[in-house]
Amino acid sequence: MSSARVESFSDAVIAIAITLLVLDIRQPSDSGPLWHAMLRQWPSLIAYALSFLLIGVVWVNHHLVFQLIERVDMGLLWYNLLLLLVVAFMPYPTELLANALISHRDETAAAVCYGATLTVVGVFFNLTWFHASRRGRLLHPDTAPEVIRSMGLRFVAGSGLCAAITLLALAQVDLSLAGYALVLVYYGVTDIRRGTAR
Amino acid sequence: MSSARVESFSDAVIAIAITLLVLDIRQPSDSGPLWHAMLRQWPSLIAYALSFLLIGVVWVNHHLVFQLIERVDMGLLWYNLLLLLVVAFMPYPTELLANALISHRDETAAAVCYGATLTVVGVFFNLTWFHASRRGRLLHPDTAPEVIRSMGLRFVAGSGLCAAITLLALAQVDLSLAGYALVLVYYGVTDIRRGTAR
Amino acid sequence: MSSARVESFSDAVIAIAITLLVLDIRQPSDSGPLWHAMLRQWPSLIAYALSFLLIGVVWVNHHLVFQLIERVDMGLLWYNLLLLLVVAFMPYPTELLANALISHRDETAAAVCYGATLTVVGVFFNLTWFHASRRGRLLHPDTAPEVIRSMGLRFVAGSGLCAAITLLALAQVDLSLAGYALVLVYYGVTDIRRGTAR
Amino acid sequence: MSSARVESFSDAVIAIAITLLVLDIRQPSDSGPLWHAMLRQWPSLIAYALSFLLIGVVWVNHHLVFQLIERVDMGLLWYNLLLLLVVAFMPYPTELLANALISHRDETAAAVCYGATLTVVGVFFNLTWFHASRRGRLLHPDTAPEVIRSMGLRFVAGSGLCAAITLLALAQVDLSLAGYALVLVYYGVTDIRRGTAR
Repeated sequence: MSSARVESFSDAVIAIAITLLVLDIRQPSDSGPLWHAMLRQWPSLIAYALSFLLIGVVWVNHHLVFQLIERVDMGLLWYNLLLLLVVAFMPYPTELLANALISHRDETAAAVCYGATLTVVGVFFNLTWFHASRRGRLLHPDTAPEVIRSMGLRFVAGSGLCAAITLLALAQVDLSLAGYALVLVYYGVTDIRRGTAR
Repeated sequence: MSSARVESFSDAVIAIAITLLVLDIRQPSDSGPLWHAMLRQWPSLIAYALSFLLIGVVWVNHHLVFQLIERVDMGLLWYNLLLLLVVAFMPYPTELLANALISHRDETAAAVCYGATLTVVGVFFNLTWFHASRRGRLLHPDTAPEVIRSMGLRFVAGSGLCAAITLLALAQVDLSLAGYALVLVYYGVTDIRRGTAR
Repeated sequence: MSSARVESFSDAVIAIAITLLVLDIRQPSDSGPLWHAMLRQWPSLIAYALSFLLIGVVWVNHHLVFQLIERVDMGLLWYNLLLLLVVAFMPYPTELLANALISHRDETAAAVCYGATLTVVGVFFNLTWFHASRRGRLLHPDTAPEVIRSMGLRFVAGSGLCAAITLLALAQVDLSLAGYALVLVYYGVTDIRRGTAR
Repeated sequence: MSSARVESFSDAVIAIAITLLVLDIRQPSDSGPLWHAMLRQWPSLIAYALSFLLIGVVWVNHHLVFQLIERVDMGLLWYNLLLLLVVAFMPYPTELLANALISHRDETAAAVCYGATLTVVGVFFNLTWFHASRRGRLLHPDTAPEVIRSMGLRFVAGSGLCAAITLLALAQVDLSLAGYALVLVYYGVTDIRRGTAR
């Protein structure tokens, strides 16, 4: 099983999941003028954009990881499949969150569910990475130890952040949504550094 | 991050978005003979074909741009991701427009929303392009300055046209739909010139 | 614009359209035992399998054509895009046909609509092919003239068959469905000959 | 028709089918608190994860097979297309099973239908494999006979297991679901052995 093929299958699943998000946005109901109905729907748009960008971040980091991977074993295949399982699940909690924010019902439950899903994405991402990088066994032999260490730190920090935001959602849903913007900025900024460093 | 990989991920998202459009076409309702019900639905078919071809134009131009790009930095990655976010959103305003044209309700609001989405597609397309081409930094070093200039002009003109059509929709919805045919012809003709010039 | 990229984009659209067909199959309603409800739904399964295999045939032939194509011009790009537009539309008439067969209402209209869509697929397929092959201008220079002639004949015959079946549907819906099996066998058998000849 | 192209088309169809599974999970109804509604929905999540992993197993094995295949003939193309037809159908019995488990109605019928679909997947997988491997005619000439024999055995055992689980579902639905976990472990363990052996 070549690493390129696992990568392109993962790319396809991630691209489909990211594009299916639009199906969650319900057409406005027929009552009242369209502008009002669409304004009431803004949480759908926020949730769409948030999930789109977060899955986008997963895609970028997935690629950064697979650039370093030389060989694929069955353990990696399974961890990666479980990661994809949760990423492909994202449209569900996204719609849950949007509906809760629109109807102002069960917002805490929905935000916790959304955060929990992202945290599980993070956990499987870390399992995939640490399975591949432990003693560097599946990585290209010339991968610098600092890169391995900083990557690991980056992913642990990312999913730690998601877990913290999930807990925060128990107390303050709106604040938790702002927290995800922080995740995007965090990965955006550190990615930019990587990008210029190369 | 290789340019080829960003391109193939973008291709996948665009291909999925273009194919999901068909899900917006609702099955005709059970009342009356099927022919009548289908005739009443012609706006769905028009909106489907229009969005399909417009996203097709985005795909062709996206490819023209990435043929010139040599390196990818994080800024390009984010602009491209935002571009994809709006392209993948297209099925939503498409259905909105079709439903409004069928029910003869809120046609102006729906046409403006449709045009605004296309304009935002154009804006992110331009941001992607100008980020890559400013001082030619991410392009192949042998890209001719005239090509860079004419590409930029082409994309600015395209999104300017979309913005103008959106304003036109405030006054005349039907005319604005005809305007998009102009966008298709504009890109079709200039593309054909490029195609034969090469 | 490289032929490989047009081919892979087309592959993606065809693969998505073929897989979206499953969304047309409605879950059986809650009344009565599941076995009975599923038996009443057999037309959905027939329509699913028929459209899946017919789109599969389009995919195989699309590939046979693009194996011969060396260069892509804008005309080819547009004919191909229109071909994809109709292929991606297939889930709609498929569901129309399945619903009509289940409810025994408007079966003729639905079967004609289904056949007409397939005929238009054939027409755009022929336009794509003849645009590419006329005076052999977009084909590999070493393509044998007999291959060009037999390919053209094959595609004209195929869409002629679809047009004939559509007319047949006006008189006899069930017979027209059997006709599509003939199309599958026709392409299956001639493909097998090609396959062994190579 | 190159083997690489058949493989990438198959990958796309499998990736889309696996990602469409999420659309089967219905949003919880509005009555009662969200936590309760989501708890009642656990069968949807189980069915989602089960089908995701089983299709993932099909993907891995499909790849193992196509690594050995050198040439593609029309027979292989058709068997593979029929295999994809059934894999792309999986979201339907998955939703059927989830709905039956949630409503406690027709659980046996739904579980048998689910198992029967998987068994047919297995049958077409075997037809694809045996068509390719009979007298080694489509395989790379240097494929070891033991590999051919052990692959064949593996696939026959796998679909035999699915058939047995389907029969088991007639008597005990819950036990049959546990049976699929066995299928996953079976392919997981034997795959790991292959993975380390290489």
